Amino acid sequence: MSGFSFQVEAREARARAGRLRTPHGEVETPAFMPVGTAGAVKAVLHEQLRAIGARLLLANTYHLMLRPGDAVVAQLGGLHGFTGWEGPFLTDSGGYQVLSLEALRRLDEGGVVFRSHLDGSELLLSPERSIEVQQNLGADIAMCFDECPPGDAEREVVAEATARTTRWARRSREAHAREDQWLFGIVQGGGHLDLRERSARELIELDFPGYAVGGLSVGEPKPVRDRVLEHLDQVLPETRPRYLMGVGTPQDLIEGASRGVDLFDCVLPTRNARNGQLFTARGKLAIRNARFREDPRPPDPDCACPTCRTTSRAYLRHLHLSGEMGAATLMSVHNLFFYLDMMEALRQSIRLCRFEKWRKDTLRRLAEGQDGP
Amino acid sequence: MSGFSFQVEAREARARAGRLRTPHGEVETPAFMPVGTAGAVKAVLHEQLRAIGARLLLANTYHLMLRPGDAVVAQLGGLHGFTGWEGPFLTDSGGYQVLSLEALRRLDEGGVVFRSHLDGSELLLSPERSIEVQQNLGADIAMCFDECPPGDAEREVVAEATARTTRWARRSREAHAREDQWLFGIVQGGGHLDLRERSARELIELDFPGYAVGGLSVGEPKPVRDRVLEHLDQVLPETRPRYLMGVGTPQDLIEGASRGVDLFDCVLPTRNARNGQLFTARGKLAIRNARFREDPRPPDPDCACPTCRTTSRAYLRHLHLSGEMGAATLMSVHNLFFYLDMMEALRQSIRLCRFEKWRKDTLRRLAEGQDGP
Repeated sequence: MSGFSFQVEAREARARAGRLRTPHGEVETPAFMPVGTAGAVKAVLHEQLRAIGARLLLANTYHLMLRPGDAVVAQLGGLHGFTGWEGPFLTDSGGYQVLSLEALRRLDEGGVVFRSHLDGSELLLSPERSIEVQQNLGADIAMCFDECPPGDAEREVVAEATARTTRWARRSREAHAREDQWLFGIVQGGGHLDLRERSARELIELDFPGYAVGGLSVGEPKPVRDRVLEHLDQVLPETRPRYLMGVGTPQDLIEGASRGVDLFDCVLPTRNARNGQLFTARGKLAIRNARFREDPRPPDPDCACPTCRTTSRAYLRHLHLSGEMGAATLMSVHNLFFYLDMMEALRQSIRLCRFEKWRKDTLRRLAEGQDGP
Repeated sequence: MSGFSFQVEAREARARAGRLRTPHGEVETPAFMPVGTAGAVKAVLHEQLRAIGARLLLANTYHLMLRPGDAVVAQLGGLHGFTGWEGPFLTDSGGYQVLSLEALRRLDEGGVVFRSHLDGSELLLSPERSIEVQQNLGADIAMCFDECPPGDAEREVVAEATARTTRWARRSREAHAREDQWLFGIVQGGGHLDLRERSARELIELDFPGYAVGGLSVGEPKPVRDRVLEHLDQVLPETRPRYLMGVGTPQDLIEGASRGVDLFDCVLPTRNARNGQLFTARGKLAIRNARFREDPRPPDPDCACPTCRTTSRAYLRHLHLSGEMGAATLMSVHNLFFYLDMMEALRQSIRLCRFEKWRKDTLRRLAEGQDGP
């Protein structure tokens, strides 16, 4: 497909550094995607995202199909024309949102009937409709419509959801026609290695240009997640990008990359910023803490982001406690910079064959806590 | 006082174009001050303010004395050190806020006992305390503590408030000691020209470097405001800056400048932006209007602001309806740019002796409405 490619350019053990080319630009991997649910990263403008090096953004099919509606977005030139973001986009399938307890009304082989959180109306999302919406949104990368079972589901339920995910992947693939859009399959199977392997093999037979790992970060113990990723690393084709959906903390990203993951997304950096929590190389910092009341130091003295170059902990704390929107912006910019900058260091370390040392050092510092500086 | 000066450099009828020099930079007048209540303009970062040409910011004494507290701000280097804004600041006296119906507890010659909106505690604001707070905040320009009577007050009440404002101005002046801060007097007197004149003459005797006009924009008819300004233009010294407090709409600024006003502040551009209302050369535009749903045009096709250069009405409408903070930022940036850009054109027109024509043309276009473009 024209305009797309993926190359693994360096390896250390299971970790890979590569390059994903899309019609809207290149992305070095492993990469973190900021989440722009409604076509905008919350509290951060495009120019601010560009300034901190963001490239690939995730947008949510569920939210955009409800508002402003995928037909409106298509009419205005797809996500790129509508939002003005010139870099690449990835859309999820909407499956995760419509299967949430609040939205779900009925699930069967045809698809999912769900209730809109906006007006309560009942709507259907099926593989065909999800692909139609995603083609209207026109992201560079779209996802197959999948069934993600709850984290505490019985094996039998997970097995059925996994089998259905394959059937829905086939229907998604058949419905998908855009030449300028990659469609990724989503591996399900919960914590069961045999189900995960079967899911992966069935999807590989359908020959997707990339594979996502869904159904993790849903409450499973970390060792389970690690084992799933290690197992899939042996099953998934080495030449195709792998995307671990909805994960996670800085530690999660490092552990995922060390098991061969190339793409990540998570709302954590922006959501936590709005709640006053900053990520730093020495762990998290709660800005509302009283000890920052007169603290003239930048949020993270080691950070080169626009926020740390221009503000103090005392000022950020004041803005946050005063409910000023600027606090959310300044802290979201910092947290996203922290994630993007960490991924840059991670990629470099793989290319320089120093990943294992970098991983250990970084995880140790993250555990130190901010009581030091 | 070192670092300060004000020169009127051009005139047309009563309108004046001038230059205000402060220790933190020059401001061309007539100037509009964005309001940064808590030490930040709501939803707009300093770098965004700088990019659209903002110079002089207003901060609210009432809010900052309550949170984070003026002693904390002083400890961190005053408003400049605390907020990182390198341009000039002006603080109000806090009088207007503590006299509001919700806050007021008791008013007598000593000062105002008011209830904090944060924790309900009773606090005193007096001329001495207001000046102490403002000296701690360290703005370039501070205001005398005044009594602003309600817009519908009887003449007798207004007369007493005006006389007290003079006594409080004397106490404010005696309490004020910072060499690097100008202290302005505030003229009261409601809609009564004789009271206004007496107030101005009593303040002039105290010899302030600048004079504010308070107690307007409190519900009085526009012809009353116009007459007060025209009368004061004959009484106030020509060589000192004049500041019309809390005013107002684009039309109000033009009419104020045409009657000799040099400085304005108002929350309108930022507050209206948060409510989805955009100012344009052809009047106001409510972004939530359904007819903008698929409108690919910028908010104001004639505007060169960062928002109009990068977004469409459809996208802004979507962000606003989705409750995205970015909508408030993008629209606040536009509205502030509109105000600042209009003031730049206004100053230019005075310098080129084309103000009267510019005024008529601009007011006519503002009245046209946005149904055209």
